[in-house]
Amino acid sequence: MSEILVLGGDGFCGWPTALHLAAHEDNRVTIVDNLSRRRIDDELGAESLTPISTMQTRLEAWEEIAGKERAIGFAEIDIANDYYGILDLINRHGPDAIVHFAEQRSAPYSMKNPETAIYTSDNNEAGTTRVLTAIANSESKPHLVHLGTMGVYGYGHLGKTPIPEGYQEVTVPTDEGPKQSEILYPADPGSIYHMTKVVDQAKFAAYAKFYGLRITDLHQGIVWGTQTDQTKMDQRLINRFDYDGDYGTVLNRFLMQAAIKHPLTVYGTGGQTRAFINIQDTVRCIELAIKNPPEEGDRVAIHNQVTETYRVSELAELISGLTGVAIEYLPNPRAEAAENDLVVRHEHLEGFGLEPTTLADGLLEEVIQVARKYAHRADKSVIPPSSYWNGEVPAAKQLGDKVAGAV
Amino acid sequence: MSEILVLGGDGFCGWPTALHLAAHEDNRVTIVDNLSRRRIDDELGAESLTPISTMQTRLEAWEEIAGKERAIGFAEIDIANDYYGILDLINRHGPDAIVHFAEQRSAPYSMKNPETAIYTSDNNEAGTTRVLTAIANSESKPHLVHLGTMGVYGYGHLGKTPIPEGYQEVTVPTDEGPKQSEILYPADPGSIYHMTKVVDQAKFAAYAKFYGLRITDLHQGIVWGTQTDQTKMDQRLINRFDYDGDYGTVLNRFLMQAAIKHPLTVYGTGGQTRAFINIQDTVRCIELAIKNPPEEGDRVAIHNQVTETYRVSELAELISGLTGVAIEYLPNPRAEAAENDLVVRHEHLEGFGLEPTTLADGLLEEVIQVARKYAHRADKSVIPPSSYWNGEVPAAKQLGDKVAGAV
Repeated sequence: MSEILVLGGDGFCGWPTALHLAAHEDNRVTIVDNLSRRRIDDELGAESLTPISTMQTRLEAWEEIAGKERAIGFAEIDIANDYYGILDLINRHGPDAIVHFAEQRSAPYSMKNPETAIYTSDNNEAGTTRVLTAIANSESKPHLVHLGTMGVYGYGHLGKTPIPEGYQEVTVPTDEGPKQSEILYPADPGSIYHMTKVVDQAKFAAYAKFYGLRITDLHQGIVWGTQTDQTKMDQRLINRFDYDGDYGTVLNRFLMQAAIKHPLTVYGTGGQTRAFINIQDTVRCIELAIKNPPEEGDRVAIHNQVTETYRVSELAELISGLTGVAIEYLPNPRAEAAENDLVVRHEHLEGFGLEPTTLADGLLEEVIQVARKYAHRADKSVIPPSSYWNGEVPAAKQLGDKVAGAV
Repeated sequence: MSEILVLGGDGFCGWPTALHLAAHEDNRVTIVDNLSRRRIDDELGAESLTPISTMQTRLEAWEEIAGKERAIGFAEIDIANDYYGILDLINRHGPDAIVHFAEQRSAPYSMKNPETAIYTSDNNEAGTTRVLTAIANSESKPHLVHLGTMGVYGYGHLGKTPIPEGYQEVTVPTDEGPKQSEILYPADPGSIYHMTKVVDQAKFAAYAKFYGLRITDLHQGIVWGTQTDQTKMDQRLINRFDYDGDYGTVLNRFLMQAAIKHPLTVYGTGGQTRAFINIQDTVRCIELAIKNPPEEGDRVAIHNQVTETYRVSELAELISGLTGVAIEYLPNPRAEAAENDLVVRHEHLEGFGLEPTTLADGLLEEVIQVARKYAHRADKSVIPPSSYWNGEVPAAKQLGDKVAGAV
């Protein structure tokens, strides 16, 4: 029997992970969430394409389907503000593992304005601080499994070398000649949001060293897909599908545009290469990470939670091929390299048993079962980007308006 | 004319820096402080050996001595909680530079208990977040000069190689053969406090990259000495001298012990090598850093604010030699290597014109003018360590009690 807390269990990755873990008879799952993701939807005037239920309805539906034994607990705690709340929960449940998704996870939102930037920093940093402090001061000292991001690595600032799983071999000149060292891969985040995950890394390394905590950091690529085996079981269990300019990923934007027969808008040349993973694989990765903790005294275990890489233009071509919708190239609202290669190592989780779902295999179902099915709920005005960080706000804004107008 | 804000200008380094900068006719100085250091004194039941005045008395005394033209302004703002307060101040003053000392700076305090750990993280991280966000959103985009610490480097985890000024040359294996890169020196902090300075580094790199901010990070060694040219001018301008187990440095502990004729307590073998700088040099370094900003678009400028290194045992011998007081060796309350070499590069600030004050030259004055002069104010019970992070609290605590009892 494993007792597991899922922090941020109301979110896009958190909810299906909580269900996936709860589906296994060995686990007892409790979700901890302050429901902030729903508040931000309200703030942005956006909502999930898929009609998500309230937390209470979700939990009731799950208990109805899975039975009382498999029921998921819920604690509405703001982990960024309530140290004793989280400490008390840990001491009462004595969890074996804590899965930590409870962070503001949109890069564009974090770059929107001073308030969203400060909120993102404060929330993500103070949350991780309290979780780590609570674990260090708890009786059960649970294994922490954190959802990080591939975005901490940047895109190849060390040269043409595969991005390793967290730690980079380097040679350092010393008085005794060149010496090999394995160091935390030098970070190069692209937004305030990504920066907070770099900050998390610094904290994990420190707490693992000071208090012997067992910590796994999963550097995840862009997640695609919506449903998992559990979220499909009942309409009330359906997962989020975000398509707005802040929370929607490039793939979801394409899917939405295809569903409403709008040209797929590729920013720049589409030569940006990104790493991807399917949501069904995400939930399996979390399970595998929980089952394979580092030992006390080990450094932080870092796994790249990624199964394949694609150029944005290739992705557009894939969806264009499946749907017959054309591609339109537009100036890029982000300050980033126009083109990049991205070679990422991802052997750890596959070594634990992950069998990847590929975009080529899974995309068609996503087009038909989600994007087309719920296209009538789409608010076309929220699809264009609304955060700009290339220093050309007016031009990009105009462009955003043009895109919105064109939809 | 330079307009300068000194955040944390009521503290041990901040106050003499504010005076030093204000003494120059080209500068206009405003202190920003929430007076938290005085609150922590109350919390710990400790106080400065030297009788420091209230902020109001300090400012009045300075204006009396230096004249209305040189008067220092004061804004009581908690930068960790008041973004608009700091933004408004920047926009009203249009400073050329902001000196950022406004952080909880005791490593033992940060390791004391969950509350002091969380306070240290929250305060230091949220303060830096707001200062950076305010600068990025200000009109004048002032140069930020931050007081970092040598403690971000750790002690030689990359092997026997001098610690560089912020950036380390490494060779990375790539598909095109070995490639040279200069990376931020891989951090290895020794406490939550030091970890917050690692977090600061991550934020500085990000904000310099995202918003082109001009940032200088000064990695300071252990500061010794109390008075500067300005703090000596009037009894009401006197600087702090901390000798309690949390805020007192090893050198101040020795000075106090010598003054009250108690054996100098060396933890462990005293083989720990540490980097030092005199307070008079600190204030000059800040001035030199302000005068030598990086360009917009440059990476963060990092200077090691250090002038010499000593083993703790050598330091004890130096003071024992000056005062005739014996040395006593005790178990170490910190989790750290018993012995270490420390070779630190410190060429940047000397290149800007710093002429170092050495311990061998300045210590005697410190013994006579400060430690002996104010020894009658000493509270002997606060000298032993009260934070332990070697996992042997009971033994170390017993030891602390023994030390306290022996005084």
